[in-house]
Amino acid sequence: MTEPSPTEASPTEFSPTDAFAFRVDATDGPARTGAITMPRGVIRTPAFMPVGTAATVKAMYPDQVRALGADVVLGNTYHLMLRPGPERMARLGGLHRFMGWEGPILTDSGGFQVMSLASLRKLDEKGVTFRSHVDGSAHHMSPERSIEIQGLLGSDIQMQLDECVRLPAEPAEVERAMRLSLRWAERCRVAFGTQPGKAMFGIVQGGDVPALRVESAQALVALDLKGYAIGGLAVGEPQAVMLAMIETVEPHLPRAKPRYLMGVGTPDDLMRSVARGVDMFDCVMPTRAGRHGLAYTRHGRINLRNARHAEDTRPLDETSSCPAARDYSRAYLHHLVRSDEILGMMLLTWNNLAYYQDLMAGMRRAIAGGRLADFSGETREAWARAEAERAAGA
Amino acid sequence: MTEPSPTEASPTEFSPTDAFAFRVDATDGPARTGAITMPRGVIRTPAFMPVGTAATVKAMYPDQVRALGADVVLGNTYHLMLRPGPERMARLGGLHRFMGWEGPILTDSGGFQVMSLASLRKLDEKGVTFRSHVDGSAHHMSPERSIEIQGLLGSDIQMQLDECVRLPAEPAEVERAMRLSLRWAERCRVAFGTQPGKAMFGIVQGGDVPALRVESAQALVALDLKGYAIGGLAVGEPQAVMLAMIETVEPHLPRAKPRYLMGVGTPDDLMRSVARGVDMFDCVMPTRAGRHGLAYTRHGRINLRNARHAEDTRPLDETSSCPAARDYSRAYLHHLVRSDEILGMMLLTWNNLAYYQDLMAGMRRAIAGGRLADFSGETREAWARAEAERAAGA
Repeated sequence: MTEPSPTEASPTEFSPTDAFAFRVDATDGPARTGAITMPRGVIRTPAFMPVGTAATVKAMYPDQVRALGADVVLGNTYHLMLRPGPERMARLGGLHRFMGWEGPILTDSGGFQVMSLASLRKLDEKGVTFRSHVDGSAHHMSPERSIEIQGLLGSDIQMQLDECVRLPAEPAEVERAMRLSLRWAERCRVAFGTQPGKAMFGIVQGGDVPALRVESAQALVALDLKGYAIGGLAVGEPQAVMLAMIETVEPHLPRAKPRYLMGVGTPDDLMRSVARGVDMFDCVMPTRAGRHGLAYTRHGRINLRNARHAEDTRPLDETSSCPAARDYSRAYLHHLVRSDEILGMMLLTWNNLAYYQDLMAGMRRAIAGGRLADFSGETREAWARAEAERAAGA
Repeated sequence: MTEPSPTEASPTEFSPTDAFAFRVDATDGPARTGAITMPRGVIRTPAFMPVGTAATVKAMYPDQVRALGADVVLGNTYHLMLRPGPERMARLGGLHRFMGWEGPILTDSGGFQVMSLASLRKLDEKGVTFRSHVDGSAHHMSPERSIEIQGLLGSDIQMQLDECVRLPAEPAEVERAMRLSLRWAERCRVAFGTQPGKAMFGIVQGGDVPALRVESAQALVALDLKGYAIGGLAVGEPQAVMLAMIETVEPHLPRAKPRYLMGVGTPDDLMRSVARGVDMFDCVMPTRAGRHGLAYTRHGRINLRNARHAEDTRPLDETSSCPAARDYSRAYLHHLVRSDEILGMMLLTWNNLAYYQDLMAGMRRAIAGGRLADFSGETREAWARAEAERAAGA
């Protein structure tokens, strides 16, 4: 799983450069494989970014995350601005040093978590005012302050502040938020300025309204940003809607720039989105599921809490190169999960991130070989076969 | 910290044998250093046994525990009999395979946790009846059943069932419990029978009453067991009482057999008890403290929750060979502890177990060199110096 692949260049074969650059090495339909190069390292794409919310990928040592093949991790600006605080983080030498991660870090703008976690939110043209969910302290975040905070954290890829609307929503509301996000993108672009080797990405909004999505994409492309995210998806809509929105937006995004689908998703979501031209992903799913007894594997999603595993001496995946998948029985994992043991969370998180990185590496190889559809089909078939066996055994 | 010492034999220089054997290699006053050899490996003494309550040393991968220099871990019979259950554990191949620990395992009898954790306890000559704290199910544990369970778990060193009285207690109550424990020791000895390569230890009781302690020790020695534990200490009494009881008992224990002080203790407790002839220890302190933001270090005990660490870029101990002690700033550990992050528990547990194993290795070398008093004095001085500095800085 973490072994170098014969058909994929290893990150050391690419030289990180002083500049932020993106290169497509091969395509397979809309799907692409390539690399982002930047001073802190190379991000092989399509890439899955483990989420390191509060300066830690939960229940993982940083060197484990790296060893699994993750080239970049995500930090959450909202959490880090509250604790330890951006000015303090800067005094401590920045997020990379703080959390012991030397590779590239992407930070979100903080806006999404403000809207989902903070209390007493007030949003207007200037930005958003809110109270911390940690200690109730009052904060204001403008587009300029979001970029300033991300700079203080030392982030390599920074995201514009945007407003993300939960679906379903009224088209008028979606349109208002999309236009506000566009105006904020311009202000973030000015605030970011020119930072050699770093990048700021814009975020396409527009909910489930194709015309708004296209308008948002075109307006952002006109700003000539370093990369483009598709935001406001995986917020309650069916997978088909999400995929349709990707298909709507993709033709309007420049081929020479990376595309990042925010907050997505399941392994199936990743495969279907890569097939539609997405280069980067982040999601709490593998880490959060790991803390709740769920394993993502070659054999589908396995709920270790289920009593059927109590005497199952098989590992999660005997062919994996990840010790968590290979060296512990399902019976033991079941016991750890049932007993609320930290080691259960550690092992399942490790397994899940390994599986996600393995899936990304498999897709990169498949795209390079022009056989992404076969790879995805075989992967899905293996899940379905194992799940049918489990259902028959129940 | 985990590096081989020039003056100490590495475990591979000892051959594990088919038989359970104990050898004293050097003494320094009452203190001794040596080794227990048995089929599953060699335990260098004095030894600290990390506690693996529910088949896991909490927040640690098994190979980390081994790499720190732990030769043996402790399993809790009470927890394991409730979950996953002894018969199930036997079907799964035993505790070693279950938890991925190939070295020796010592199990307690279950009695202590029954009295501290279970509800609706009823204790009589036959044993103890109780309800599980997990699901309320009814259980009975006799001396014979305790040994049977420990056998089903596959334990290498098994403990007699005893009754442990919390101090302070009435002498009559202490005496009653001590005599019951002696009768149970005889029954456990019969139940254990002869098991090549395995051992059953008796437990000296008698609270804080010297005459009872001596009587208990002498009666147990008459049973010719493989090793002797001192139980019923570190249960609320001052350290001076504990040390006095060790001094009372020690002359009555055979020099050719290992002595195990149960449930002890702080690093200072360990040094003072080793100086009084104890060979083995177990305690939840390093692991439990690690989950509560406390670090044991060469610089004394450090409470990472304290705000003074918020901008302290120093590691816990830059000279340690343990990555948790060396590669992360106190500011980062403070942040993780304040944020209730699992990684904080992982790193502090790792640090603490490393420090405990380092302390044991240091004591073994010091005894071999006839300089245990100097070693202990210097260690205590370093703690005091650092603690005085912290107090002055506050």
